[in-house]
Amino acid sequence: MSVFTAYSQEEVIDELKHRAPHAEIHLDDEIAAKHAANGKAESTIDGRILAYVAVGDKDDIRGVLKTAIKFHLPIVPQTADTSTVIGADGLNGGIILSLARMNKIVEVNEDDLLAVVEPGVINQDLDQAARQHGLFYAPDPASKPISSIGGNVSTNAGGLSGVKYGATKDSVLGLKVMLANGKEIKVGGRTTKQAFGYNLTQLFVGSEGTLGIITEITLRLFPIPIGKKIYGVAFFDNMAKLAEGVHALRISGLYPSMLEGLDGKTVQALDQYKQTHYAKSASSSMLIFMFDDAGETQLQISQKILQEQGAWKIQITDDPAQGEKLIQLRRDMLPAVFANGKYYIMEDMAVPSSKLAEMADYIVQVGDELQVNIYTAGHAGDGNLHPTLLWNDQPQAPANVIEATRRLFHKALDLGGTISGEHAVGMSKNQWNNEELGEDVDVLQHQIKTLFDPMNILNPKRKIN
Amino acid sequence: MSVFTAYSQEEVIDELKHRAPHAEIHLDDEIAAKHAANGKAESTIDGRILAYVAVGDKDDIRGVLKTAIKFHLPIVPQTADTSTVIGADGLNGGIILSLARMNKIVEVNEDDLLAVVEPGVINQDLDQAARQHGLFYAPDPASKPISSIGGNVSTNAGGLSGVKYGATKDSVLGLKVMLANGKEIKVGGRTTKQAFGYNLTQLFVGSEGTLGIITEITLRLFPIPIGKKIYGVAFFDNMAKLAEGVHALRISGLYPSMLEGLDGKTVQALDQYKQTHYAKSASSSMLIFMFDDAGETQLQISQKILQEQGAWKIQITDDPAQGEKLIQLRRDMLPAVFANGKYYIMEDMAVPSSKLAEMADYIVQVGDELQVNIYTAGHAGDGNLHPTLLWNDQPQAPANVIEATRRLFHKALDLGGTISGEHAVGMSKNQWNNEELGEDVDVLQHQIKTLFDPMNILNPKRKIN
Repeated sequence: MSVFTAYSQEEVIDELKHRAPHAEIHLDDEIAAKHAANGKAESTIDGRILAYVAVGDKDDIRGVLKTAIKFHLPIVPQTADTSTVIGADGLNGGIILSLARMNKIVEVNEDDLLAVVEPGVINQDLDQAARQHGLFYAPDPASKPISSIGGNVSTNAGGLSGVKYGATKDSVLGLKVMLANGKEIKVGGRTTKQAFGYNLTQLFVGSEGTLGIITEITLRLFPIPIGKKIYGVAFFDNMAKLAEGVHALRISGLYPSMLEGLDGKTVQALDQYKQTHYAKSASSSMLIFMFDDAGETQLQISQKILQEQGAWKIQITDDPAQGEKLIQLRRDMLPAVFANGKYYIMEDMAVPSSKLAEMADYIVQVGDELQVNIYTAGHAGDGNLHPTLLWNDQPQAPANVIEATRRLFHKALDLGGTISGEHAVGMSKNQWNNEELGEDVDVLQHQIKTLFDPMNILNPKRKIN
Repeated sequence: MSVFTAYSQEEVIDELKHRAPHAEIHLDDEIAAKHAANGKAESTIDGRILAYVAVGDKDDIRGVLKTAIKFHLPIVPQTADTSTVIGADGLNGGIILSLARMNKIVEVNEDDLLAVVEPGVINQDLDQAARQHGLFYAPDPASKPISSIGGNVSTNAGGLSGVKYGATKDSVLGLKVMLANGKEIKVGGRTTKQAFGYNLTQLFVGSEGTLGIITEITLRLFPIPIGKKIYGVAFFDNMAKLAEGVHALRISGLYPSMLEGLDGKTVQALDQYKQTHYAKSASSSMLIFMFDDAGETQLQISQKILQEQGAWKIQITDDPAQGEKLIQLRRDMLPAVFANGKYYIMEDMAVPSSKLAEMADYIVQVGDELQVNIYTAGHAGDGNLHPTLLWNDQPQAPANVIEATRRLFHKALDLGGTISGEHAVGMSKNQWNNEELGEDVDVLQHQIKTLFDPMNILNPKRKIN
């Protein structure tokens, strides 16, 4: 809060207590202490928050919005606080509006193949609830056990199943959203087909809390396929060959539900972490794949394709226990990589499939040139790569890491891709709007933002700003 | 044109010729004559157009937009002119901006599983081009052989494959759009994952030419599945039983690619048209289904499910020739129905799957009460019904038909559905915005429209107005 404020923190807190009677309200010191316990430095990235308000219901949300408008305060919507792009950290003098307590699964409807949830519901909890009805919730970010549906929707989160089931946006049928003025609107609905109004549902999906507060989400659920699950790994001499294998599987008509690629350094890190000997050379690349609706045919054809594409070691199984062991390699990838540095940035970019190998090679080249330790893995079937850049000396990213990131972003854009495949923009990439989108779209975005949030109270300084 | 115009038609035409040098420009008389030859009454629904401009390139489009802004003229974008909701007919004193000549398939990219097309490309032509690469274009409206991708995108057209592959929106990766001010923007891209800016791509999809002129479309293509195609028909005692059968197939985990339902009257009309004897009673309902990636298992399980659900006649085959005969029943449905009246309206509404039977029963009830001849068929797997209301005496819909339509719309909305599943809004349903969307969303839509098209030159009087 500035020096010459027209109000005191106490006044704002009193107003919040009055207008949001069911909310739990905390001050910065408490939140900072909680964050410190979780290994986070501070409650904000730029100072002290004015208040952390964990709302209990929609009236509370409206109360927070009204208070923010009265005192001209920034609101940062937050659910599980797992953003990887500084999307939900508090802002100095602002209010964190936590929706974590609004975590009810309102409905799992087997007849309509859908669920209705509050934003604080954890992804995995919804999926488990759906499976009790013979259904499942398709989007599965790596953060599945800890991230919320509200956050997944706000960032258009992706995940391992994207190659078959798409990203979060592809599972959202409808939303309830409270606008900055406190009015709640309903967009979309309970039908998969909809050709009436403008598609405001998809305008809110991925808008990172900058256009309204999502209060309820209607999500498509899929029936569990009748086929068997088939799991596999295959090793290639390099990422270019792996990319060819991925393409051959995708175009085969087999419809894999997972195609994860790990570069040579990542395989070496895995070897070290698990005491295995997968990496034949420094460029040995590993493909981990799955079919969730397969039979003997898929097993045989995929084996044949991978052999033809030059994979030098292939393991495929329809035994769930063995399969789980192969999938575990994917899960062990993150700790195996993180063991190689004290600090890291995990990046996120997607390129057209045909450019996957070129992007992966370029990442290696940049790492060599700038002497940055980079490990790359990602959702190869979507052309979506996550290079992890590691360093040791200081918490702040050193100059060569920042420069490497900039080069990787430029390359992804040059290849016709995006610098955010599934992690959104937050405060990490908002300076790239002009380059990713161009000036005219950049301006349009600001006009849309102003239309929905004329006082710029909703997650300001993020995404488009 | 009004009496006290500030300009003459000649001035406007001169300006158009100057600013859109590659366009073919026609006056109302020529277009009216052409329309008359196609059985249409007039070139507009409310008078005479000022000009029909078939543009040859983007410069022409920009020229038409500049002209429209200068003279304050409405523009109606048009491609194949197959709208079923008066979405693309000319307006009095306005310009029809035909994109039909811009019908180039710019690219079919097997590596990236996508195509880039101009808006005038016919759906079926794209699909055929994709199949030469082992891919296919999934959305298949019944108008597939005659409707354009530009129109499909502008209306978010659905079709028979929606139950598995979604509507047009689910295949659109990116767009180029010329805004009202003549600037061309690019939204979305060539990747399936995208989490950067606001999703403007989906704001333009289904916007019916009211927000900008779509100049290029990047579309996802799917690999042709390795499995066999299985085709089938099954007959039920009534629509409620058919709906249960549809639900049982959907939730089974079998993933059918087509689930079409025909009500009793439609089956009787088919019997009459084809000299068959399918209709056991006036409520006999017919399900036509397909799997596009199946094996023996799917064939057996679906047979078992349909028997359990009380289907009294089931034919299933994996023989393509026999299968085509069954699918032909779906194609013959329209002429069979249209043979029962001189004039008709084919409606389009979607309800949550669990409400399909209730909606179908209500349609029959309204037909009885108001003495309207109604035949209902539709994409049962999507809860998407097309009741066709027929009459004889006069071209204008009589009072009981209008009243029946109103009741059906109210019912669809009461059941949590939409009054436009896949045909969009046009001038047929634009008076229903408040009821379908509510006042706040209605106002928001107008604000968005004003943002993109402040002079309201793009397809005015439609969709939201």
